[in-house]
Amino acid sequence: MKEQPKVAVIMGSISDWETMKLACKQLELLEVAYLKQVVSAHRTPDEMFRFAEQAANKGIEVIIAGAGGAAHLPGMVAAKTVLPVIGVPIKSSTLNGLDSLLSIVQMPGGVPVATVAIGAAGATNAGLLAAQILAISDRTLRSRLEARRETTRQEVAGGYDFDE
Amino acid sequence: MKEQPKVAVIMGSISDWETMKLACKQLELLEVAYLKQVVSAHRTPDEMFRFAEQAANKGIEVIIAGAGGAAHLPGMVAAKTVLPVIGVPIKSSTLNGLDSLLSIVQMPGGVPVATVAIGAAGATNAGLLAAQILAISDRTLRSRLEARRETTRQEVAGGYDFDE
Amino acid sequence: MKEQPKVAVIMGSISDWETMKLACKQLELLEVAYLKQVVSAHRTPDEMFRFAEQAANKGIEVIIAGAGGAAHLPGMVAAKTVLPVIGVPIKSSTLNGLDSLLSIVQMPGGVPVATVAIGAAGATNAGLLAAQILAISDRTLRSRLEARRETTRQEVAGGYDFDE
Amino acid sequence: MKEQPKVAVIMGSISDWETMKLACKQLELLEVAYLKQVVSAHRTPDEMFRFAEQAANKGIEVIIAGAGGAAHLPGMVAAKTVLPVIGVPIKSSTLNGLDSLLSIVQMPGGVPVATVAIGAAGATNAGLLAAQILAISDRTLRSRLEARRETTRQEVAGGYDFDE
Amino acid sequence: MKEQPKVAVIMGSISDWETMKLACKQLELLEVAYLKQVVSAHRTPDEMFRFAEQAANKGIEVIIAGAGGAAHLPGMVAAKTVLPVIGVPIKSSTLNGLDSLLSIVQMPGGVPVATVAIGAAGATNAGLLAAQILAISDRTLRSRLEARRETTRQEVAGGYDFDE
Amino acid sequence: MKEQPKVAVIMGSISDWETMKLACKQLELLEVAYLKQVVSAHRTPDEMFRFAEQAANKGIEVIIAGAGGAAHLPGMVAAKTVLPVIGVPIKSSTLNGLDSLLSIVQMPGGVPVATVAIGAAGATNAGLLAAQILAISDRTLRSRLEARRETTRQEVAGGYDFDE
Amino acid sequence: MKEQPKVAVIMGSISDWETMKLACKQLELLEVAYLKQVVSAHRTPDEMFRFAEQAANKGIEVIIAGAGGAAHLPGMVAAKTVLPVIGVPIKSSTLNGLDSLLSIVQMPGGVPVATVAIGAAGATNAGLLAAQILAISDRTLRSRLEARRETTRQEVAGGYDFDE
Amino acid sequence: MKEQPKVAVIMGSISDWETMKLACKQLELLEVAYLKQVVSAHRTPDEMFRFAEQAANKGIEVIIAGAGGAAHLPGMVAAKTVLPVIGVPIKSSTLNGLDSLLSIVQMPGGVPVATVAIGAAGATNAGLLAAQILAISDRTLRSRLEARRETTRQEVAGGYDFDE
Repeated sequence: MKEQPKVAVIMGSISDWETMKLACKQLELLEVAYLKQVVSAHRTPDEMFRFAEQAANKGIEVIIAGAGGAAHLPGMVAAKTVLPVIGVPIKSSTLNGLDSLLSIVQMPGGVPVATVAIGAAGATNAGLLAAQILAISDRTLRSRLEARRETTRQEVAGGYDFDE
Repeated sequence: MKEQPKVAVIMGSISDWETMKLACKQLELLEVAYLKQVVSAHRTPDEMFRFAEQAANKGIEVIIAGAGGAAHLPGMVAAKTVLPVIGVPIKSSTLNGLDSLLSIVQMPGGVPVATVAIGAAGATNAGLLAAQILAISDRTLRSRLEARRETTRQEVAGGYDFDE
Repeated sequence: MKEQPKVAVIMGSISDWETMKLACKQLELLEVAYLKQVVSAHRTPDEMFRFAEQAANKGIEVIIAGAGGAAHLPGMVAAKTVLPVIGVPIKSSTLNGLDSLLSIVQMPGGVPVATVAIGAAGATNAGLLAAQILAISDRTLRSRLEARRETTRQEVAGGYDFDE
Repeated sequence: MKEQPKVAVIMGSISDWETMKLACKQLELLEVAYLKQVVSAHRTPDEMFRFAEQAANKGIEVIIAGAGGAAHLPGMVAAKTVLPVIGVPIKSSTLNGLDSLLSIVQMPGGVPVATVAIGAAGATNAGLLAAQILAISDRTLRSRLEARRETTRQEVAGGYDFDE
Repeated sequence: MKEQPKVAVIMGSISDWETMKLACKQLELLEVAYLKQVVSAHRTPDEMFRFAEQAANKGIEVIIAGAGGAAHLPGMVAAKTVLPVIGVPIKSSTLNGLDSLLSIVQMPGGVPVATVAIGAAGATNAGLLAAQILAISDRTLRSRLEARRETTRQEVAGGYDFDE
Repeated sequence: MKEQPKVAVIMGSISDWETMKLACKQLELLEVAYLKQVVSAHRTPDEMFRFAEQAANKGIEVIIAGAGGAAHLPGMVAAKTVLPVIGVPIKSSTLNGLDSLLSIVQMPGGVPVATVAIGAAGATNAGLLAAQILAISDRTLRSRLEARRETTRQEVAGGYDFDE
Repeated sequence: MKEQPKVAVIMGSISDWETMKLACKQLELLEVAYLKQVVSAHRTPDEMFRFAEQAANKGIEVIIAGAGGAAHLPGMVAAKTVLPVIGVPIKSSTLNGLDSLLSIVQMPGGVPVATVAIGAAGATNAGLLAAQILAISDRTLRSRLEARRETTRQEVAGGYDFDE
Repeated sequence: MKEQPKVAVIMGSISDWETMKLACKQLELLEVAYLKQVVSAHRTPDEMFRFAEQAANKGIEVIIAGAGGAAHLPGMVAAKTVLPVIGVPIKSSTLNGLDSLLSIVQMPGGVPVATVAIGAAGATNAGLLAAQILAISDRTLRSRLEARRETTRQEVAGGYDFDE
């Protein structure tokens, strides 16, 4: 992928990749250049801050961050940049991601995180949301998004009357 | 407000205005033109669809939608446009907004809603997030956002050592 | 099934059929004519509205709608018709259907959804509830419902004293 | 009210009247004859069973039952009649009605309760749902329901653009 | 078992036996005579009332009732007798028994149910609690309970220092 | 009160008295002799153990223990006696007593606590449950309980048809 | 306070002081020198990191951090130091501090936060826990802690038998 | 292990060892001497109290206690010693450890328990937290902790850019 990445997909642990790759898949389908990295809020805090500080200068326009449990990655990255940050709550082994969701979405006034659903659906939607944001000033991308919607619509509508 | 609004702030009920005006306040501080309307998913479904269908053509670039309880407004608007939609879960009288939050954030793969915190903090952040999204292609707005961050930082840091 | 269907069983995704077929099974046992369709609030919003608008004219008297996660289908259909709508919360993969339940049941005053239990028990009961509603003006159907109750009663009572 | 009541509005305690009167208010607005009674599952179990057994013969066509906490009234009445039973979870003082909701909605397969939202919104919707059920075979009532919808729509739409 | 049963172990469904047999096992170990029956609040309501009305006259002194989901059996039996009723919340398939627990424990003032833990631990403890109640006026049984405690204590204490 | 107390009502803090006095009120109405004490699991652990060890020898037959938050009092007393222990979850200031409830009811197999509802209803029921247990071998007390039930029944039934 | 502070009490917002002063009160009663500061994870992230990096060199031995909502302060400070960090979940306005609790306690393996109760009780205990940690190598402090325990014990035990 | 143990790792049941061995593993990696024992609050209450009373005199400086469900072990040990007590909520079979967490963390003011995450992550962090506490007065141990952090950091940073 030689194009300058506009979206950064980061995650707190390599084990989150299973979920986060769904975000990347959407970006690929929509031909949005992205980079992906493991950046841990708790294990590599300085690298996380450096990443967030430099993201805008490197041409990143939207950040997608996935994390689970006491999920601090999306909120802390958001505290260090004014780029829009999308948070994906990873499903956790004990509380099914309710902890991840609350840790990401309940940000105090001043530092927003655009939170999506827990787990796979959320990761897919994070990719789409990033594209929707970029499409504001990219007519081609908007057309791709609209075409994707239409395809989805037809798939469902085609199965409108189904046989068991 | 003569400027063409780029952000639409909608809410399911006039009673949500108490919360949603905090989103508008941020947009005003950041000099982002917006319009505000009451659009109810359940009481004015056709108006809601029309709103969502026409938003992009009217120059709207980001939609902020607040709703409470079985909060369907953000997700249904998102189903009818590829503009980014930010959902604000209004605090509900019985379940404190947990119902609003889950109804907004747990969208299925395909139709994202950028969800923020329940209540006042969420509304404030919805305004900021909309501005952050627009700032991707608006250097002046980005500077305003950075200045706001710096002001906030100084306010907190100035109170670093406090007396009771 | 040539008889004019009185009940429409709709669901947000073909994956909900595993649950929703239990509603259909009850309708078949009680000889209530029904139709079944996949109608997605988020992926086919216009088809959903058209379905809801036309249902009464097509002779439908009760609608059963199943959906999971941020489950908007029952409430949005209910917003577009004054036919009684029964909502079935599908068990979701992350929050076990608590999100589906709250998204369906916590409707604002003005647009009711008759909500049943999460998952299989709920789907079975949705079929029965539709029949109970139709039985108000259908003595034969009421007799079938009473006979079913009596059969169930005897099955349990027959196993009153059981051996391991 | 001399007309034969078609809807029975019952509640587990006189303290539930504050909520349940909202159901009655809707029935009055829609000119649906109803009776109201306090029937406690736990304090007057025999009266409850007698009520449920006789309801159909007395001309009742729909039962609305409100209860809080370990709310057994709707489900137990439903176990004794094949009339449709609508359950209203009363907001409880300790758990905000989450206990009431789960006690009412999570019925086992075989005995449905049409559950509505916790508290005031639910009571209002219970009245409307009862009317919607009766309207299946009552064109005049259906027209009233449609007129009510239209009025509500206009009220909201009229406040579409609002001033603070 | 020829001895007059003093404890009745009832359950809402034969599927609850897997859990409820643990209560019976404790009663057997403690040589407390019991009977066991399936009695469903929702499917055999009249049999349930008859059971509860007659229990005291038949020599039953304590009732153990297990049920899941919208678990009404323990509370409704308790409404029909002044014998102590112990409620066992069966683990439910969707909400893990939280619904069962709240439906059983949150009884209104006037009709108590002695609630134990969800699932297996609760069923075991229901058997023990019934024995503890009977042991108030049965020295031999109290000695057996004390001996059981001592055995348990020694088993744990013997494994005080353990090797992996 | 000169009679030998058969019930001990204990609580973790004097602030729990507001709730626990409702248990005592029932015991007084039913003429059951009781004693009441503040015994804190966390602040007076040795006194708690001594209390539990000596209770049976002092003629106590049932123990009622109220506690809030991480409520350990009922379970720890139960671990030190084979008398039946009734646990009352006090409504806590942050989590409304859900923490109290789970801390009391989720006891491991081997040491039961008879748990009642959170707060006032639970305290009332704790008093009644203690009386129901004692009434197994006390015909007079059973008659009083039955009379109380009948009075309650009549009060409710008398208000069967009410005027606003 | 001239003595070198050994405990740092930090909080995310000045509004948390109402709660956090209870931690300070315990430290004062136990004569443990401390400093207090407002340090916001989201509004002053760099100051937070600097604080955490320098704490050990400045002689701080234990850090107490209070925060609410998506509470990232305790965990992020813990990621930047190997000093023990005690986290106090502040009661939040919407979810009563359940979000604060989960955001603080559910840390991934590698970076512990010693979490205490939500709100006032937690803040008091944070002060005590810090003192207990310091008392490992400070006999005088341990004596003070033991004296405090004994005083508390006597206060409760003195009120053992109370009159209304 | 001949060295005088400074940390005691106790657990309510041998079945908790699967989780608690992760705490021991960290202590071994950091060369902190420890002992491990099964001590049950409910089945061996006297042994538990004796353990807690004697711990300090035996040279123990930090106690790690794991328990599940109505988890009373950490709080009761904490009530009997002024040593710092770290509580590990074991994941429970019905409520996923939410009961364990609330039973441990929601301690009343006066008796703190340093609570860590539910399950495996919590057990690992309990071992680390104990070491961090001991490292306050042990430079070598602090160096080991810092080295461990650095190793972890490098492992994550080394995988910064990863290939699928």
